[in-house]
Amino acid sequence: MSGTAQIGVTGLAVMGRNLARNFARNGFTVAVHNRTAAKTRALVEEFGSEGTFVPAESAEEFVAALERPRRLVIMVKAGDPTDAVIQEFAPLLEEGDVIIDGGNAHFADTRRREKELRERGIHFVGTGISGGEEGALHGPSIMPGGSAESYASLGPMFEKIAAKAPDGTPCVTHVGPDGAGHFVKMVHNGIEYADMQLIAEAYHLLRAVAGYSPAQIAETFRTWNTGRLDSYLIEITAEVLAHTDAATAKPFVDVVADQAEQKGTGRWTVQIALDLGVPVSGIAEAVFARSLSGHAPLREASRSLPGPAARPLGEDDAGRFADQVEQALYASKIVSYTQGFHQIQAGGDAYDWGIDLGSVAAIWRAGCIIRAAFLDRIREAYDAQHDLPSLLSDKQFAEEIGAAQDDWREVISAAARHGVPTPGFSAALAYYDALRAERLPAALTQAQRDFFGAHTYRRTDREGSFHTLWGGDRSEVRTD
Amino acid sequence: MSGTAQIGVTGLAVMGRNLARNFARNGFTVAVHNRTAAKTRALVEEFGSEGTFVPAESAEEFVAALERPRRLVIMVKAGDPTDAVIQEFAPLLEEGDVIIDGGNAHFADTRRREKELRERGIHFVGTGISGGEEGALHGPSIMPGGSAESYASLGPMFEKIAAKAPDGTPCVTHVGPDGAGHFVKMVHNGIEYADMQLIAEAYHLLRAVAGYSPAQIAETFRTWNTGRLDSYLIEITAEVLAHTDAATAKPFVDVVADQAEQKGTGRWTVQIALDLGVPVSGIAEAVFARSLSGHAPLREASRSLPGPAARPLGEDDAGRFADQVEQALYASKIVSYTQGFHQIQAGGDAYDWGIDLGSVAAIWRAGCIIRAAFLDRIREAYDAQHDLPSLLSDKQFAEEIGAAQDDWREVISAAARHGVPTPGFSAALAYYDALRAERLPAALTQAQRDFFGAHTYRRTDREGSFHTLWGGDRSEVRTD
Repeated sequence: MSGTAQIGVTGLAVMGRNLARNFARNGFTVAVHNRTAAKTRALVEEFGSEGTFVPAESAEEFVAALERPRRLVIMVKAGDPTDAVIQEFAPLLEEGDVIIDGGNAHFADTRRREKELRERGIHFVGTGISGGEEGALHGPSIMPGGSAESYASLGPMFEKIAAKAPDGTPCVTHVGPDGAGHFVKMVHNGIEYADMQLIAEAYHLLRAVAGYSPAQIAETFRTWNTGRLDSYLIEITAEVLAHTDAATAKPFVDVVADQAEQKGTGRWTVQIALDLGVPVSGIAEAVFARSLSGHAPLREASRSLPGPAARPLGEDDAGRFADQVEQALYASKIVSYTQGFHQIQAGGDAYDWGIDLGSVAAIWRAGCIIRAAFLDRIREAYDAQHDLPSLLSDKQFAEEIGAAQDDWREVISAAARHGVPTPGFSAALAYYDALRAERLPAALTQAQRDFFGAHTYRRTDREGSFHTLWGGDRSEVRTD
Repeated sequence: MSGTAQIGVTGLAVMGRNLARNFARNGFTVAVHNRTAAKTRALVEEFGSEGTFVPAESAEEFVAALERPRRLVIMVKAGDPTDAVIQEFAPLLEEGDVIIDGGNAHFADTRRREKELRERGIHFVGTGISGGEEGALHGPSIMPGGSAESYASLGPMFEKIAAKAPDGTPCVTHVGPDGAGHFVKMVHNGIEYADMQLIAEAYHLLRAVAGYSPAQIAETFRTWNTGRLDSYLIEITAEVLAHTDAATAKPFVDVVADQAEQKGTGRWTVQIALDLGVPVSGIAEAVFARSLSGHAPLREASRSLPGPAARPLGEDDAGRFADQVEQALYASKIVSYTQGFHQIQAGGDAYDWGIDLGSVAAIWRAGCIIRAAFLDRIREAYDAQHDLPSLLSDKQFAEEIGAAQDDWREVISAAARHGVPTPGFSAALAYYDALRAERLPAALTQAQRDFFGAHTYRRTDREGSFHTLWGGDRSEVRTD
């Protein structure tokens, strides 16, 4: 027996509920199910008028409500809860049915689940969904992995509910097989960490070096948001900084505890990048900055460490400095995205996913947290050259970062002299300067490794692997 | 039946062979075994006169050669080969026997193996051994984990073969239960990565900013090695930089390919630190710098990116700058060790290992790659206060870093202006400035998270968890 619902959503916390409503508002008949049926009833009661919902109280009822092949979206917590739900539903499904996991799963879990279900004839589509509650309701950026076959039937539905880029294109694409979607979503979140850290550093510099008030900084961010930094995160930064705390009449940002939390996708991004050998220093510094902020006893014990004597700039210099910070922020942002896209490229190669980097940039243009005008530029760069070795090899990005570099250097220099921590800005500049270096001191590092561990080295002037007899007469022997 | 050998070594590649010789030279009767018997015979033939070796051709023969309880050191590659050897020998052992794994195992593997063998009544002692080939032969730094019971019989033997600190103390201690030894060895290697990266940056700065030749830099490092930076790595840096390539008559460092390799313990250190929530930015930047150096196509594509116009300093300023670099290197080194010891502390807490940080510093004073006068200072700091929140809370380190900070800032500023990548120096300063900050922009980060994801925030002025209705009237609600 087969039902009439074109799609089902199980797990009706806020993300699941909003996604179900999004499907319904776009004309799909949506079966809805939750472990506790009260949530299912509440959804239909409150939002039933938005479209056609088929509430189901049991797993069996839920599956029976779906037309075949069944399409069933799981919106539960990543990890064990996801496995539990899969094990509950899989026995009720038939060959050709599709399970979509819309949570923030680790891509390795997604690969495992996809393989297990594929062997049972069921498609498993690990799908990154970004945009938070609002995105889920009004149009998220959607990053599905899984089989091309499953995407043929899911794609048109996702295109309806996805955010639309400024040019009208839906923000969804078939990222690649098995875990590709969740991998790309993970890197999206990593880049989001880096973006937020860079913004935090810009704010800190404007506050401590330029001497601006939160309201003035809000104004600065508003201006930036009309230019090349135009993005959701810059926009909400201005909103947050302009907000006054009602209870104290102080700037809101000053009453919020300065300990940033994190859920784990940023950490995963860095851990996987380390496995892939991709330097993602900007993302790593962002993750570390959040951890550091939370180590209250460590910070307490370090408060009395001496800082520099530098005073904030005068009003005349502050405006010029703010412009330099914009350059530094933009240049560092280019580096963050360069690192993030390098990781996607490396992951795509390692797992043979065939990811099109331009398409990834395209589907991040709207709906997701890092949505920005900037992403259209990245799309253009990869569309112009699919095998671009790095975003920094794109002519226009190279020109822009080249034009920004003097100010960028001045800002980092000012940060050091004023005692403002800029781990993100500094890591980005170090990456830039290392990449363009004719020679790196890695030669010394490798020579040291040969000295204490006989790890050998290669030479610049001929092929082969060599070792110097450091403990002996220091002659060189060939080791390959 | 029981043999006469007090200890056995299986796996006679260079590390295993030298460790066996070390035991023999110290008067122990050593059973030796290798998968291919030729190596066993070669060892006895070449070094038999150094002590008493009992060569064994088969696993059974090897086990029979050992007195009971048997002590058997495995010196094979980490990972599957270690498991294979354990599975070969464990069935031949009896309750109370001790297997020592002297390889670079991941501590999680060591925990698993220890648990499995403990259930069979066999002690498994994951043991970090640092010092390379020379250390293994003449005295390594030894970091054993495992049971206190096993250490009671192993400790005296390890004390004989271990390196001796300047005050005569053997560089070995019972680090803690199960994987504690391999964990500490892992962090040792992570710190080693950071140390090497900081040295590489100092070299790069002296070369590119001060305009020194490799020979001049060798001289500078030699001088530094007579002061507070006195250490094995500084010593060999001078050796490497003073070395001339025989084939080209060029400075050796200039003919070595500038791509640094790595084996994996640095990467593990960062990955585990991320899981523990410990910021180890210095180690991370060191790992990333090595990966970056190896990305030849990426570097090739980025060579033409523009750099700054700054020229090297004149001779008059170069000497002063070199002194500042010493300050920056020392300050950054304090931060590296602060981060590394924080990770050991956090790991010790997470796994309930009860690690004594002062003892760890003490056993790194000789034998291992990071051996340095500096470690005696760290030992003193922890001996004076066992629960020191951080190395930076030690009065003397705080004073020293405080005295260095102005120069440190100048060096980082000069690096930025001259286009020399200093990811390690910069990450260290950012960590220092973040730790001592009265307020961090993490408040803005957390407020943004509340804005786009309703992740809530805490307030500075009262307890509880709060959310601002950003999409509504922006009033604040309590969420706990």
